[in-house]
Amino acid sequence: MPRRISILGSTGSIGENALRIVAEHPDRFQVAGLAAGKGWERLAEQARLFRPAAVSVADPRDAAHLEGIVPKGTAVLSGAEGLREVAAGVGAGVVVSALVGAAGLDPTLAAIDAGVAVALANKEVLVMAGEIVTRRARARGAALLPVDSEHAGIAQALQGRPAEEVRRLVLTASGGPFRGLPLDAMARITPEEALRHPTWKMGPKVTVDSATMMNKGLEVIEAHWLFGLAPERVDVVVHPQSIVHAMVEFVDGSFIAQMSQPDMRIPIAQALSYPERIPLSVRRLDLAEVGTLTFEEPDSDRFPCLCLAKAALREGGTAAAVLNAANEEAVASFLAGEVGFMDIPAVVGAALDAHAGAPASGVEAVLAADHWAREFARTCLNGQAARARRR
Amino acid sequence: MPRRISILGSTGSIGENALRIVAEHPDRFQVAGLAAGKGWERLAEQARLFRPAAVSVADPRDAAHLEGIVPKGTAVLSGAEGLREVAAGVGAGVVVSALVGAAGLDPTLAAIDAGVAVALANKEVLVMAGEIVTRRARARGAALLPVDSEHAGIAQALQGRPAEEVRRLVLTASGGPFRGLPLDAMARITPEEALRHPTWKMGPKVTVDSATMMNKGLEVIEAHWLFGLAPERVDVVVHPQSIVHAMVEFVDGSFIAQMSQPDMRIPIAQALSYPERIPLSVRRLDLAEVGTLTFEEPDSDRFPCLCLAKAALREGGTAAAVLNAANEEAVASFLAGEVGFMDIPAVVGAALDAHAGAPASGVEAVLAADHWAREFARTCLNGQAARARRR
Repeated sequence: MPRRISILGSTGSIGENALRIVAEHPDRFQVAGLAAGKGWERLAEQARLFRPAAVSVADPRDAAHLEGIVPKGTAVLSGAEGLREVAAGVGAGVVVSALVGAAGLDPTLAAIDAGVAVALANKEVLVMAGEIVTRRARARGAALLPVDSEHAGIAQALQGRPAEEVRRLVLTASGGPFRGLPLDAMARITPEEALRHPTWKMGPKVTVDSATMMNKGLEVIEAHWLFGLAPERVDVVVHPQSIVHAMVEFVDGSFIAQMSQPDMRIPIAQALSYPERIPLSVRRLDLAEVGTLTFEEPDSDRFPCLCLAKAALREGGTAAAVLNAANEEAVASFLAGEVGFMDIPAVVGAALDAHAGAPASGVEAVLAADHWAREFARTCLNGQAARARRR
Repeated sequence: MPRRISILGSTGSIGENALRIVAEHPDRFQVAGLAAGKGWERLAEQARLFRPAAVSVADPRDAAHLEGIVPKGTAVLSGAEGLREVAAGVGAGVVVSALVGAAGLDPTLAAIDAGVAVALANKEVLVMAGEIVTRRARARGAALLPVDSEHAGIAQALQGRPAEEVRRLVLTASGGPFRGLPLDAMARITPEEALRHPTWKMGPKVTVDSATMMNKGLEVIEAHWLFGLAPERVDVVVHPQSIVHAMVEFVDGSFIAQMSQPDMRIPIAQALSYPERIPLSVRRLDLAEVGTLTFEEPDSDRFPCLCLAKAALREGGTAAAVLNAANEEAVASFLAGEVGFMDIPAVVGAALDAHAGAPASGVEAVLAADHWAREFARTCLNGQAARARRR
């Protein structure tokens, strides 16, 4: 019996790659449901190709466009209710959670509450609400399968060994384009410079997060929640070639590392076919051709975002939600040319200092912290932008 | 209940390291039996420290020395019968098979026939008799647990995934001290030069095998038998830092690699405590401190032994026993200063060309091939030595 897959965010890069894998393995996978934010035209094409039980779009007006052009037997839904239905109401065995931002939290929890395995590509779900999500997944016996390369790498390297055999997890970071830049030049980095990432092709927000190394900080937080290790047992090493994605150091001194060409289909396929591995037509890795792999410690002076993320994780409660929200606002402001590159960690750090710690008792508490942090960050950023204009 | 361990070759480097691990974990391990070739004094010390049910030495006269000085309750045995008893007659849960050469074959088979797990450090057991040993181990349900770093690395990287998910195994080779030497200088390598191994400290035979890369050829043969993959799916890559010990490439393009500081206790402990990992006080690996890992293709012109081993493996039957025996004779002759470094592959290749292929139907057929190859190689080597003296 093919495994039934639902995809939240089917027209994004993760969603499209997941569908390529489904198309490559029609004997193994079937599409149960697809949900997209906008882009109803592409969603209609996907529906014609994969014939899901339901599709859903954010806006009911886009749903009206879809009616009549999707195959018979495909229900057209919309809004938050549509997302929940695609996640939990169409009999999926795995839900790919690949929406961007806090919008992914509610349908991901719906899938978990229905006991459905979640292939998790949405960072915010774990960064903002890691405690809530992992607690509920444990209670419901729903598997959380990481989809990004670093966490999929750790899952492969761990291969089910218990936490007491693990000394620490090590995530690799490319180090971004500014790895070699002197500290005093960091403040003058322009958005154009920050958007040139050396290895992976990604959206602008993630590319800037990679340049500040905040993305690695967020991944440390995710790794903590996914694998249940204390913050001090999740480390980062800079590895500019991006071949080794993650490593596990065991108590006997042995390291297990996961490596591959950078291709998102590898971790996506592993989540879809878990625990099996399926053949993929990706470019093969030839280490003799690569020749050299290098490793170095991350520089916390030039990349303070990594330390900020670790501090938020150690603090717990809603601190990681504050970190994430303040960072989103700061990156948007940097990309708009309003503030400098080093204002990003400055604003995030100020938000963490200013916020009143609170337990992440439920989704409301987390969303309230997110809201507060955005307001706070915007105030800081406006002040900073005004000062910059006066200079 | 502690796991009961017997060690064949307890006074050698593998044996001593295994006993260090037992001493570090008295709650987990108990010594059932110890066997050594010579060195009865050290064996007596080991018996006093670990109180095994039996000890055995090769020579009955050494056994006479041991009587009276080993603890009460420790039986003193000798010869082939003593080895078999230590392997299969003292209730061991794991037998460390660490004798050197063909002498290890008979007691290893005795352990297997008794259904006891074998922690295998004796290369010849699999190189000469891989087909016989693996067939019997399967039939008896006896686990074969590799003890050298490369195969232990593969076992860790595979972690039980089925062969159809594996594209190939990759063993790393340090490349030995002559990795950068021009081909025409290879013939003039002296024994002293060959004995300077860059990373591991080993006996002279293994160090020369490392310099010719025959050790890696023998490991390819072992990997074939241990993991059941066709010869063309076992590859070698040169990795001078000897940090990555082995890798598995899976069908989805993902590689799982095992890394550590070079310390024999890591693979030994993994075999003793399989499938668990236990804490070891070994030096920790810090990749940022190591900095750079490099990889290159092995050069088959300068290291023909690797190709010879692969050819013997593809041929099957007794060819690998011929390869191994001819190599032992050639290395001994090289170390005695009688023949040149490049005479080693020449003599091994001549023996492989000259031998009459035969199925490895039983231990007798294998030992007959071994005997023939030694005779053949000695004739070649004597001729070569005489020619060298005339020059």
